[in-house]
Amino acid sequence: MDFKISPAEIEAHYAVLNKIGNLGSSLTDGFLRAGYSTAETAAMNYFANEAGKIGLNVRRDAVGNVFIECPGQTPEFIECGSHLDTVPLGGNFDGAAGIVAGFAAIKAMLPVAPQLQRGLRLRIWRCEESATFGVVYCGSKAAFGGLDADNLNRSFDGQTLADAMLSQGADPGFITSRQAAISQTEIDNIAAHIELHIEQGNLLEVTGKDIGIVSSIRGSQRSRVELHGQFDHSGATPMGPAFRRDVNLGMAHILVQLDELASRYLSQGKDLVQTVGIINCDSGFSSASKQINQNAITKVSGYGYFTLDIRSRDNDFRSSYCDEVDKLILDVAARFGLEVAMKVISSSPAVGSLDNNIQQQLTSSAAELGYSTSSMPSGAGHDAVIVAQQRRTDNSTVPVGMIFIPCRDGKSHCPEEFSSYEAIARGASVLAQTIFKLAQ
Amino acid sequence: MDFKISPAEIEAHYAVLNKIGNLGSSLTDGFLRAGYSTAETAAMNYFANEAGKIGLNVRRDAVGNVFIECPGQTPEFIECGSHLDTVPLGGNFDGAAGIVAGFAAIKAMLPVAPQLQRGLRLRIWRCEESATFGVVYCGSKAAFGGLDADNLNRSFDGQTLADAMLSQGADPGFITSRQAAISQTEIDNIAAHIELHIEQGNLLEVTGKDIGIVSSIRGSQRSRVELHGQFDHSGATPMGPAFRRDVNLGMAHILVQLDELASRYLSQGKDLVQTVGIINCDSGFSSASKQINQNAITKVSGYGYFTLDIRSRDNDFRSSYCDEVDKLILDVAARFGLEVAMKVISSSPAVGSLDNNIQQQLTSSAAELGYSTSSMPSGAGHDAVIVAQQRRTDNSTVPVGMIFIPCRDGKSHCPEEFSSYEAIARGASVLAQTIFKLAQ
Repeated sequence: MDFKISPAEIEAHYAVLNKIGNLGSSLTDGFLRAGYSTAETAAMNYFANEAGKIGLNVRRDAVGNVFIECPGQTPEFIECGSHLDTVPLGGNFDGAAGIVAGFAAIKAMLPVAPQLQRGLRLRIWRCEESATFGVVYCGSKAAFGGLDADNLNRSFDGQTLADAMLSQGADPGFITSRQAAISQTEIDNIAAHIELHIEQGNLLEVTGKDIGIVSSIRGSQRSRVELHGQFDHSGATPMGPAFRRDVNLGMAHILVQLDELASRYLSQGKDLVQTVGIINCDSGFSSASKQINQNAITKVSGYGYFTLDIRSRDNDFRSSYCDEVDKLILDVAARFGLEVAMKVISSSPAVGSLDNNIQQQLTSSAAELGYSTSSMPSGAGHDAVIVAQQRRTDNSTVPVGMIFIPCRDGKSHCPEEFSSYEAIARGASVLAQTIFKLAQ
Repeated sequence: MDFKISPAEIEAHYAVLNKIGNLGSSLTDGFLRAGYSTAETAAMNYFANEAGKIGLNVRRDAVGNVFIECPGQTPEFIECGSHLDTVPLGGNFDGAAGIVAGFAAIKAMLPVAPQLQRGLRLRIWRCEESATFGVVYCGSKAAFGGLDADNLNRSFDGQTLADAMLSQGADPGFITSRQAAISQTEIDNIAAHIELHIEQGNLLEVTGKDIGIVSSIRGSQRSRVELHGQFDHSGATPMGPAFRRDVNLGMAHILVQLDELASRYLSQGKDLVQTVGIINCDSGFSSASKQINQNAITKVSGYGYFTLDIRSRDNDFRSSYCDEVDKLILDVAARFGLEVAMKVISSSPAVGSLDNNIQQQLTSSAAELGYSTSSMPSGAGHDAVIVAQQRRTDNSTVPVGMIFIPCRDGKSHCPEEFSSYEAIARGASVLAQTIFKLAQ
């Protein structure tokens, strides 16, 4: 039995979703559906209403996540899930594509659901993006009792996370007491969990593949490195570290040597991406660090900072690599007479390997539907990371898989983020086909 | 005959000057005496009044510069000069030290002036600093008819240069018509011109010398380089130029290779200082280039910029070096898939060699007074550059020399700028001793 979901089905949901949290009148004006905002709730309610119309059950957990299920009395479930919140000035595909595809997949299987051994479920997680409250996977972490209480004091747009939760009918008390909003029985009965997501990179596009079968999810460590040197007259101070403590020059040497260090490990086959995303231009941090404004065209630079995002699917390697990075930065900075202040901003673990059986089922489903596939790591983190960390009573972990679909130019977290309805429909079809097989 | 000027004499002038344009109640609160401001005029008037009290003549040219002269009928003059304006949040020594020292030197020589063959003159130039109206050497350039008229439209603090000039009794009409405010006869009769200035570097301090004998003055080219790449997800986009057009990484490689290029020429004995003063943190330019705010910790960088200040005392070398720099930037940028926009912001020529006779006289004067000296290029530009460009009727140039005195930590253009009254007094003594010999 083949489940082919039409682009028209995808487009019908987007016709509504494109109007919720849009910052203008078109996709390219960008979106803001912050976690625990009225806009996020409106998008969740759209799917809850649609679910009700076709006879699906809708549950809400205490921390505001929405779960849509086929009716029936099966103990075990095959799930899919993702999120509907966006980063500020983001697109409508990161997260949303997974919800639209998941809803379409379950809707397509609804006629055969009564004959399946396992139930079908879509999880719409709240507040996945870290760009709003500064903490990633809020909703899914909170659902499983894994969100630290001090996050409730984080603010976005003048409101704490606790107040934002209350405003959307969610209960921050579960976070205060680190109490799970999903029962252990429910966790024990998750037979498989699959998240469909846009790739957020351009590997599928560059290699011309329809579907990515995600093999692992990279963990990350994000940090900020401040360098302190000395401001000096650019014309009167001779070159060289005997006379200059030049932050800009020292920083350039650090970044080139970090690039060489990463290249060395990449050539050894290690999984690694290393990115210096920001040099001196985080407006919030710069306004708190006034020294940045003392830099001038006719001065040797005395202060600057950069950010580092280091990701790998190999937690042990990442940990030792980050130690090497710290040492390299201190060594090179010392050669330029610079003082260093390093701060780890966030860290999240990798999922070294997604469930092998799910990967195989996804691959064969795609083949059955005539789609080309590529096995690939996920560079970005997703709610699926949190699901994959959950332990059942027998100490086994929940089997988790992920489907990637191509997105234009690999762009994400920007108004240009785009996946075609055709690409989403292909992913939704693979999702449905796989859920069907796993649920039999 | 030895002229030893006491630190107390220097201190007496600073007791007044420290209150004019001070942004608080102490030196370290910084100063603002903008060119063609009431504060600059007040500082000039202080010296004009002091000059009158001891019988010196005071002239003002049409563009607002003040000239103080010993009375007498000698056709030729030995001059000193500098400026009293400051950069915003600057110190009270860049420029001011030269005026205090020059006034003290002429005052010390006043008793013997009637017996000298040549007259003595102190030139207080207006508006030397480029940090206010964006053009350097305004007053001295205008005096010699060398300031372009379009500079009159430049603004500082909401006022055009033309309006600022009018407010201080100066006539912008001389600039409109590029007409000199100093006669050719007066230029023909400048036998020597000497500017005392703080070093604005730390060579004298590091080497423990009292006096710098300036051998040349570096010219400079200042430019801004913008790099355009592509914003991408930091976790999902593999490393390497096949997938990333990474501005921050490309920029780091450019800066390191520029450093290597400069080092190669320095090791060949070329005179060169190269400084990347600003990376991504010029608040005015950044607010006009909103792309800079799209950089984020979890994105590959798609836009950035840096400034370059390249100085040499060798105009031909600087010109060919700047060509090589442009080529290097384009080459490295291309390897990282980056587009480049380069803009030269300003350019000013070097004085390849200051007058040899004056250098010798300064050196021997210092030796006579028991001060240690070091021959050194001036990295920064000074009004002396403009005087050195002036041609007499016989096509010879005006002989120009410069004295450097140490300043603490080499700092300048900041509230920490500092030279001791002792250091200024030593410089003033060398100035007086040399002027005396040249005037005989």
